[in-house]
Amino acid sequence: MLEHGGRLLRAAREYRIAPDKWLDLSTGISPRAWPVPPIPPRAWHRLPEDDDGLVEVARDYYGAPDLLPVAGSQAAIQTLPKLRTRSRVGVIAPGYAEHAHAWRQAGHEVECVSATQLLDTHADYDVVILIHPNNPGGETFPRDALLALHARLHARGGWLIVDEAFIDAAPQHSLCPDTAREGLIVLRSVGKFFGMAGARAGFVCASHALLDAMRERLGPWTLTGPTRWALAQALADTGWQASQRDWLHERSAKLTETLVRHDLAPAAGTAFFQWRCDARASVLHAALCRRGILTRLFDTPMSLRFGLPADDGELARLDAALADIHQRGERA
Amino acid sequence: MLEHGGRLLRAAREYRIAPDKWLDLSTGISPRAWPVPPIPPRAWHRLPEDDDGLVEVARDYYGAPDLLPVAGSQAAIQTLPKLRTRSRVGVIAPGYAEHAHAWRQAGHEVECVSATQLLDTHADYDVVILIHPNNPGGETFPRDALLALHARLHARGGWLIVDEAFIDAAPQHSLCPDTAREGLIVLRSVGKFFGMAGARAGFVCASHALLDAMRERLGPWTLTGPTRWALAQALADTGWQASQRDWLHERSAKLTETLVRHDLAPAAGTAFFQWRCDARASVLHAALCRRGILTRLFDTPMSLRFGLPADDGELARLDAALADIHQRGERA
Repeated sequence: MLEHGGRLLRAAREYRIAPDKWLDLSTGISPRAWPVPPIPPRAWHRLPEDDDGLVEVARDYYGAPDLLPVAGSQAAIQTLPKLRTRSRVGVIAPGYAEHAHAWRQAGHEVECVSATQLLDTHADYDVVILIHPNNPGGETFPRDALLALHARLHARGGWLIVDEAFIDAAPQHSLCPDTAREGLIVLRSVGKFFGMAGARAGFVCASHALLDAMRERLGPWTLTGPTRWALAQALADTGWQASQRDWLHERSAKLTETLVRHDLAPAAGTAFFQWRCDARASVLHAALCRRGILTRLFDTPMSLRFGLPADDGELARLDAALADIHQRGERA
Repeated sequence: MLEHGGRLLRAAREYRIAPDKWLDLSTGISPRAWPVPPIPPRAWHRLPEDDDGLVEVARDYYGAPDLLPVAGSQAAIQTLPKLRTRSRVGVIAPGYAEHAHAWRQAGHEVECVSATQLLDTHADYDVVILIHPNNPGGETFPRDALLALHARLHARGGWLIVDEAFIDAAPQHSLCPDTAREGLIVLRSVGKFFGMAGARAGFVCASHALLDAMRERLGPWTLTGPTRWALAQALADTGWQASQRDWLHERSAKLTETLVRHDLAPAAGTAFFQWRCDARASVLHAALCRRGILTRLFDTPMSLRFGLPADDGELARLDAALADIHQRGERA
């Protein structure tokens, strides 16, 4: 199993700063979360039921003809490789590591390559996995290019898997409406946009046959009662969703301004994070840690991902830390 | 996938009685549930963390040297068959159908036989699966007999799996404290005793090596944040647990009295349900349905399982319905 989480606690120990004193910018989860109302006792008490209306609300929100609720994208990522015989799989790099890991574990031949190589008309993968927009690289892809790639893959019995965990702030780019096409599989998650990573919930949008195969593998009751109940409302709350899109774009723009002001112009970004490629990323990461600010460090390429500060106060703290680091020459 | 749930909605349609008018005695879930306090927003917002203290509290409650939280017994039931090469598997019958189903799906040779046959010293299974106490049969097994069975199985590299979903009202019979022994695997669930079937949570108590293999298969974040937060408190709430044990025994005894009074003496039962073997079980089931009372009908052997009425009012409703059925000769 790949390592996840615990980064904040490790940093707290290493830098001797209490966990609750940190500004945690190490995730891509929106710091503004959908406010979950009190959970009715019935949702805890009874077995979750498939016909509670969640699927209908989700179909509307995602614009998908058919979908399956799963216990987070992770459940889909682990299951999809088991539904194919040994295949040649191309995974976007750099990208979320669980995709390549899961396909390798299941015995497939996996190459992690750039988006350009995956979209090349001469590539001969059986399965291509894109993250759209990409994390941390922020790449976006024209809809036509994705559908053309899917058509080429489908012609030889292949799959295009698009992980759209970060697309909710620009939903017009989603391929969910196209997922009745055999071999086009879109993964959505409520973790990032709704700020509900603890709910362990996502949706697979795909053809009916593929969803049936996946449902059979996953078994009954993949989501908890409270998660189903909360999600059915969050996905229907179009007013909050619109305000959240505005908020994310505004906060991401403010984060960019701050980084630019400190000569740290991002190479790319989404509404959820900004990505700074920098040969001295690890030095900057450590200097921020000494000030109780946790960012996410990547080494291929050397880069830092900055999640969104929750408000002007948190942004000001980042701003002041970057100014202090510059003044003391800690980035030199 | 086996069929689950939806029985109440189907009965509501068939008997034209609105779903909220039913007395649902069709499950083994305690109608008295641990009262879940309001969930802190943080539990919804952040990814669940393995080092949040849940495992330590669970080890105390179950008295198990080592355990793994899983998304309900179901997750363990589906995963265990994948950790063995083709085996000869004996499963207690009648019993919860998912066990046999999961082992068959994974390509094992499965026989569903009586507890007596499974405990026979001449049986030569590689894996034996017991439910203790059994559902719906209510059988209980002496600890020495179970440990002797485990020793025989272990001597040939086999496993004894004990599903203790209904044992919390008599925890002194649990084998959890013995699960450091290789090849002894105990499944626990919070669904029945804590009345938290919606939380999708259970624990596998087993040797360290087996739990590692299972953890690797299941991947990260198998429980939601709200479930982890609520469970850590429910499992530590020893006062409530004691009152719940008393309550279950008292309600189960009252249910038994009522059934005996109507000449429906149970063949067996637990603190969570009573089980009536009856050649005319399906007639009685239908007569109760016509009165908006749902029980669980089994056909091998012909029998009815009565879950606990939640209070004296619900018990009186069952009592009146049984009297009416008798008076009108509907059981004849």
